[in-house]
Amino acid sequence: MKSKAAVAWAVGEPLSMEIVDVMPPQKGEVRIKMIATGVCHTDAFTLSGDDPEGIFPCILGHEGGGIVESIGEGVTSVKVGDHVIPLYTPECGECKYCKSGKTNLCQKIRETQGKGLMPDGTTRFSKDGQPIFHYMGTSTFSEYTVLPEISLAKVNPAAPLEEVCLLGCGVTTGMGAVMNTAKVEAGSTVAVFGMGGIGLSAIIGAVMAKASRIIAIDINESKFELARKLGATDCINPKDYDKPIQDVIVELTDGGVDYSFECIGNVHVMRSALECCHKGWGESVIIGVAGAGQEISTRPFQLVTGRVWKGSAFGGVKGRSELPEYVERYMAGEFKLDDFITHTMGLEQVNDAFDLMHEGKSIRTVLHFDK
Amino acid sequence: MKSKAAVAWAVGEPLSMEIVDVMPPQKGEVRIKMIATGVCHTDAFTLSGDDPEGIFPCILGHEGGGIVESIGEGVTSVKVGDHVIPLYTPECGECKYCKSGKTNLCQKIRETQGKGLMPDGTTRFSKDGQPIFHYMGTSTFSEYTVLPEISLAKVNPAAPLEEVCLLGCGVTTGMGAVMNTAKVEAGSTVAVFGMGGIGLSAIIGAVMAKASRIIAIDINESKFELARKLGATDCINPKDYDKPIQDVIVELTDGGVDYSFECIGNVHVMRSALECCHKGWGESVIIGVAGAGQEISTRPFQLVTGRVWKGSAFGGVKGRSELPEYVERYMAGEFKLDDFITHTMGLEQVNDAFDLMHEGKSIRTVLHFDK
Repeated sequence: MKSKAAVAWAVGEPLSMEIVDVMPPQKGEVRIKMIATGVCHTDAFTLSGDDPEGIFPCILGHEGGGIVESIGEGVTSVKVGDHVIPLYTPECGECKYCKSGKTNLCQKIRETQGKGLMPDGTTRFSKDGQPIFHYMGTSTFSEYTVLPEISLAKVNPAAPLEEVCLLGCGVTTGMGAVMNTAKVEAGSTVAVFGMGGIGLSAIIGAVMAKASRIIAIDINESKFELARKLGATDCINPKDYDKPIQDVIVELTDGGVDYSFECIGNVHVMRSALECCHKGWGESVIIGVAGAGQEISTRPFQLVTGRVWKGSAFGGVKGRSELPEYVERYMAGEFKLDDFITHTMGLEQVNDAFDLMHEGKSIRTVLHFDK
Repeated sequence: MKSKAAVAWAVGEPLSMEIVDVMPPQKGEVRIKMIATGVCHTDAFTLSGDDPEGIFPCILGHEGGGIVESIGEGVTSVKVGDHVIPLYTPECGECKYCKSGKTNLCQKIRETQGKGLMPDGTTRFSKDGQPIFHYMGTSTFSEYTVLPEISLAKVNPAAPLEEVCLLGCGVTTGMGAVMNTAKVEAGSTVAVFGMGGIGLSAIIGAVMAKASRIIAIDINESKFELARKLGATDCINPKDYDKPIQDVIVELTDGGVDYSFECIGNVHVMRSALECCHKGWGESVIIGVAGAGQEISTRPFQLVTGRVWKGSAFGGVKGRSELPEYVERYMAGEFKLDDFITHTMGLEQVNDAFDLMHEGKSIRTVLHFDK
């Protein structure tokens, strides 16, 4: 079938609106009609050429919400008309990772997904016969997209897909890192570095976890108003201090925070985030994605004296079994999403959405396919 | 009172046998008669001058077993004649750290202990009127030594102090890192880097935790016989391979180990230990103490994809409340200590014990005060 899509033909070039061909879903696959999709820094990261797995031409986008249009052979867990959120981290339930009970990083289709292909090693997108690659297994910048069945979370049909699409990446990543990965306890002190969509979501997660003190750190003070509205108790700009920000936080908190989260992707900030943690038990979670080849470092004494350094991908959330519960909690009013959505526009304005993001003017732009 | 002691007068010099003066225990303090003490790499580390907290002259030694000789005002938890193991990590039960329930790193007397002093800011040792500093709050290379009450674990008097003295540092550090810090589960795969006393103790801990596969790594193959005897299932010499040892282990274990332990203090090995862990859940525990100023590094992707980097001091064991239980498990035959004790000699031979250790010929030398 024909579908409008924003195609990334090459590194660094603006996305191009095209009418592409989308094949029917094959065995174990599902074709969905996208209703809305967020625009995330990771899309821009890949477009910039810094992502070693980036492969072009491709259709970007990984933070979507849609409705099942058709299903391939053998698909049983979703049916036409179901509301779904595409998952860049699938959940097959069968691989060593899924069975471990210790991680959400299902590896069932990792290899082909990393190559921009469906599990059978081919692509469903093309333009005038030229194949176009998938991206993160999701490619939500297309009105119609094909995914493996194991890459779909079936969610409450009453949930507005124009909002809960954000649970397909950023919001879940931040909230999940706090609640699933770190398991922040009530009364804890928390520091969150970087007030983009992920960092703000981590603030929400910390509020939901009943943290007693939530310190937001950013060098862009325009982010602080929303951070405070969402629940940050302290907002700190490292530029206001002569000494390392970790020293500032350690003083401010009588020894350091119980948990910290790096939501930027800056290896120097990752070190600060670790070292602002409390001796004996402080845990730091890396969420941001650093550039290729960059390294983190610290003195081992930081760990020997009880700090823990870990990371989180998609908030440690298992997409099919746990993401629907996040949607339910949203529907129950436990957290809001509209604060994140600073802009809405049509798919045709996707390049404007990138610009707003690069300029730090948006938290999230959501593209509506009916606009 | 007079006491024989091995005094470290200055950095790098052999210890000197002296008759020193030992003051009576002050308020909250206890004087003990040492029965035996192990000689540990940390003693040599401080003597070498690499320890930024090293202060001279001092009486080294921190792995002892002794009997209470007299008690100071207000001491209630031990009485004359009790068998005790000195603790370089005290347990006051009152500080923020003790109350946290998350760490064994009691900080009650950290400041004075780091300066070689008792909690009141003075020393109990002197020679011809010249003060001699304490070391790690224990100074077990003296026939009589004074410690704060909170730095003593009261243990089963039936336990041979000439053996359980090793629970005062190395053995507990290795076993505790496995059982307390990492909480290795039955069936896990484990890699232990460095087959000194700590590493071998980690092997024992892994056996007690019912690990299914225990990989010992060392460049000194003479250590492998004992490692195998204690329970290592694989022994690997990194020099036998052209590629990084982490790659070797990842291949050998179909993706990496569940837990790894660095028992050397080498920052490069610490990286290998992390990176040989399984994606998604592998945890690496740093036990070794690196030289001042040295740093660990890795790509943050290692953590974002689920590995955890942590550390352990004294095996995460709370000395007063948990160490007596280790002694009981030893008495119940759950593990042996005689394999560790490759040499016994008198305090007068302490410099020989250092030589044996530097030459890699001993696991542990235990000095007996009645020899």
